[in-house]
This record gives sequence, structure tokens and C-alpha cells, in this order.
Amino acid sequence: MNNMHNIKLTIAYDGTNYHGFQRQNNALTIQEVIEEKLSPIMGHQIKLTIAARTDSGVHAHGQVVNFYTTGTIPADRIPRAAMSLLPADIVILKGEEVPKIFHARFHAQKKLYTYRILNAPVLDPFERKYAWHQYGKLDIDAMGEGLELFKGTHDFSAFRATGGAQVNPVRTILETTLEPKNDIIEISFLGTGFLYHQVRNMVGTLVEIGHKRRNPENISDLLQNKERSKAGPTAPALGLHLKEIWY
Amino acid sequence: MNNMHNIKLTIAYDGTNYHGFQRQNNALTIQEVIEEKLSPIMGHQIKLTIAARTDSGVHAHGQVVNFYTTGTIPADRIPRAAMSLLPADIVILKGEEVPKIFHARFHAQKKLYTYRILNAPVLDPFERKYAWHQYGKLDIDAMGEGLELFKGTHDFSAFRATGGAQVNPVRTILETTLEPKNDIIEISFLGTGFLYHQVRNMVGTLVEIGHKRRNPENISDLLQNKERSKAGPTAPALGLHLKEIWY
Repeated sequence: MNNMHNIKLTIAYDGTNYHGFQRQNNALTIQEVIEEKLSPIMGHQIKLTIAARTDSGVHAHGQVVNFYTTGTIPADRIPRAAMSLLPADIVILKGEEVPKIFHARFHAQKKLYTYRILNAPVLDPFERKYAWHQYGKLDIDAMGEGLELFKGTHDFSAFRATGGAQVNPVRTILETTLEPKNDIIEISFLGTGFLYHQVRNMVGTLVEIGHKRRNPENISDLLQNKERSKAGPTAPALGLHLKEIWY
Repeated sequence: MNNMHNIKLTIAYDGTNYHGFQRQNNALTIQEVIEEKLSPIMGHQIKLTIAARTDSGVHAHGQVVNFYTTGTIPADRIPRAAMSLLPADIVILKGEEVPKIFHARFHAQKKLYTYRILNAPVLDPFERKYAWHQYGKLDIDAMGEGLELFKGTHDFSAFRATGGAQVNPVRTILETTLEPKNDIIEISFLGTGFLYHQVRNMVGTLVEIGHKRRNPENISDLLQNKERSKAGPTAPALGLHLKEIWY
């Protein structure tokens, strides 16, 4: 159809009050809220295709979706129009009309995730929903050494969710950074794609290195041995932030 | 009594879910939560004296209180002990035993307040409870010029809450700063004391200057004329952050 438009939206949301992105029966999700609020502007029910599903409590600063519509509102007007309709914890940052072939998930080239840790003797009330609180002082240097070993193309079976879909466990991590800012430690992973729970499992293992319960070199062993049970726990969802997606 | 201790606590809280600090009937306040949670540790009902009352929605990063107790828990252990009892949006950062004469309000020498403004075409979901959203581009230079005129000792009648208590309206502002950081503008006021709603009224007026609805020099006129009705509106509570108090 010639009057069909493919719209790409860049979205930010605070995941605290939602059961993740993807629609579910009997639980409020971000997808449902956006589809229900935007459909009246488009004049018909829309269906979002998402770049990277996020779990309950995970936050996004640059999530990407696309959808097809016969609606005539210019794409760059959608952010302002949506602002009065959406709750304040979901914001459309950018709207663009893209070629019909564009697919938010299949065409994503790189994704950047940042995991935030609060390393302080007491909690910070302003970080309680956005960072994982670790009381004991973490050894940043050791964590940085371990983090470095994740870079490259590896079989990440030791860091995938148990019971996850049986997809190819080989993934490529292009860059990693570890930045301490006052009491906050931000660990970032730039990769071409990630397995389900991979970032949270890598961070759970790095935190054990920070507490000196593992050596940094243990990361290499885990990548070799591929045993999920030998790696660290899954870090909680609230510290995980999807920052940006490149096409 | 010789076994009576005077304890000073430094406190941080996210004010979003409370009806301000001070106890009220039929509304949950920060004072009530802290007194009810700490009293069992002290072995008797405690009563907090607060340095600077905050309204509903106002945040604190370094509020100060003191209270008298016969309890024997060392003051520096209170932050960790309280963390498991208090909700995550109220945190005791520091506990100190102080001389019996110490009074959190009367002995405060200087207070630092920061008001946060989000100046962006769309809302940031992570700032929705912590910064006042202004869509139109603000003229930062003009706001800075106006801000400068608040410095010094003045009659702040034009910036006090209407219907507030009849206290001396002369106050001294020692320092001011205006710092833009990406889309956030932080306006800080260091003063010996502030009238009720003074910071929010000063900010409401500065934002009108930022939107070019007033000239920066208008601040001098308002300080001279002392008419509340001629100044700008009261900026919303959620952008106000009590940062630090000096003794």
C-alpha cells in the first residue's frame, strides 16, 4: 500500500512500574501502554516491533521500535503529541519515517547497555530504583581486569539464562568500560547482540570478583567451560539500562 | 540526666511519596516514619528537631535533625541499623553524638538549596520527579544576570509565601550558581536562612526571565518594591533539593 508509513521511534522509560516491555496478559507492560495511547492518533490499532526486549524493572534511555501506519501525523510530531497521552515514565524522544524495509530488531547493528552499581555503606534514596546497592567496598581494578576478558567473540553459554531459548550462544562484545563516579560504578557493554540475561549474569560475576570471591582470570575459564552453574548470580534488573542502539 | 544523649542525624530522602517532613494528622510524613522506626532501637519514643522543614515533594540530600535519647546504640551505628527498618526512600547518612546544647534548627549557620530544571523539548522519564520541565529554550545568560541580583542582604517580601508567618523578611544570600549540564539547569542558593517558599518563588521568577517575559533587572525592582503579586509564580516542589546544612 502506498499510503503505508513505517515509523521508527526512539523511546526512554523508567521500567520500575511495568512488567517489562513485551505485552502480557494480566500485567501492565510498556508495549501495551504505547500501543494503546498511540493508536488513536494513528486512527487504527498499531503493533510495535521492538529492538531489544527489556524485563520487568529494566530501564531504557534509547530503546527503538518501529510500526506501520496509515496515519498522517508527521513522524517528527509524534514525540510532542504523545507526551500529553503517555504517563510521565514513558517518553518518545524521537520519531522518524524510515524505509518500509526497516525492522527495529533485525537491522540493529550494535547495542549499548550500562549496568549501574551503588557502592556505598548506606543506600542513596535517589538511586534505589536505578542502581544495585553493594555495601562492601568493591575492588574496581580487579573488576576492570575481569571485564576486559569479555571483549571479543566468545561462546557465552556460562552467562546465558538457564532455560532460555536455544539460540546460538556465540556473541561479540566490541567495547567495555568501567567508570566510577563518586559512589556509582557504571559498567558498559557495547555488543552486536546479547543473550537473555547475559549482561546481568556478567555483572553478577564481576561483582563477585569485586568482593574478591573470584579472580579476574576466572572469566576466561568460564568462557572456556561454558557452565552457567560456575558463574555468578544474575544481577538485579533495576541496575540495567539500555542506553543506545545503532543501525 | 547524665545518661541522656543528643544525637545529630544527617538524612537524605526522596520526598515524592510523603506529605513533607513535619508530622501531620492523616498524612504520611518523613518525620513520622523516622520517629516510628527509630524509637524501638532507642527503647523509647523519640522526637526529632529538624533543621529545615521541607514541603510535600521536596527532596533532601543532607537534611539534619537532632533528638535526645537514653538509648545506648552508638550514634555511628544508627545509619546501618536504620537501613533495614526504614523504607528505601529515606536514608540516614550519618549519626553523631553532639553536645547537649546542639539544636538542629537554631544552630544552623548556612543552608544550600539547589533547584533543578529540565530544559528539553520532551520530558526525561528519569527526571520526572526531580526536575521542573520547561519545554521552551531558556535564556541561561539572562537568568544568570537576574540570579546575581539576589546575592546579599535584602528584604525578600516579594518572594515569600503569601499568608506565611509574619517573620522578619530580611535574609542574606551568600552565593548563587547556575550550572547547565546537558538538558538540566541547576540553580543553587547558599544562604543563612530562607523564608517559606522563597527559593521556589525566586526560581519561578527566574524562569520568567529565561522565557524573556521579564528583564533580569526586574529582580532589583522586586527587592525594592516588596510586592509578592509582582513577582513570578512558585516553582513546583519536585525540583527543589535541600543539599547541605553547615553548623
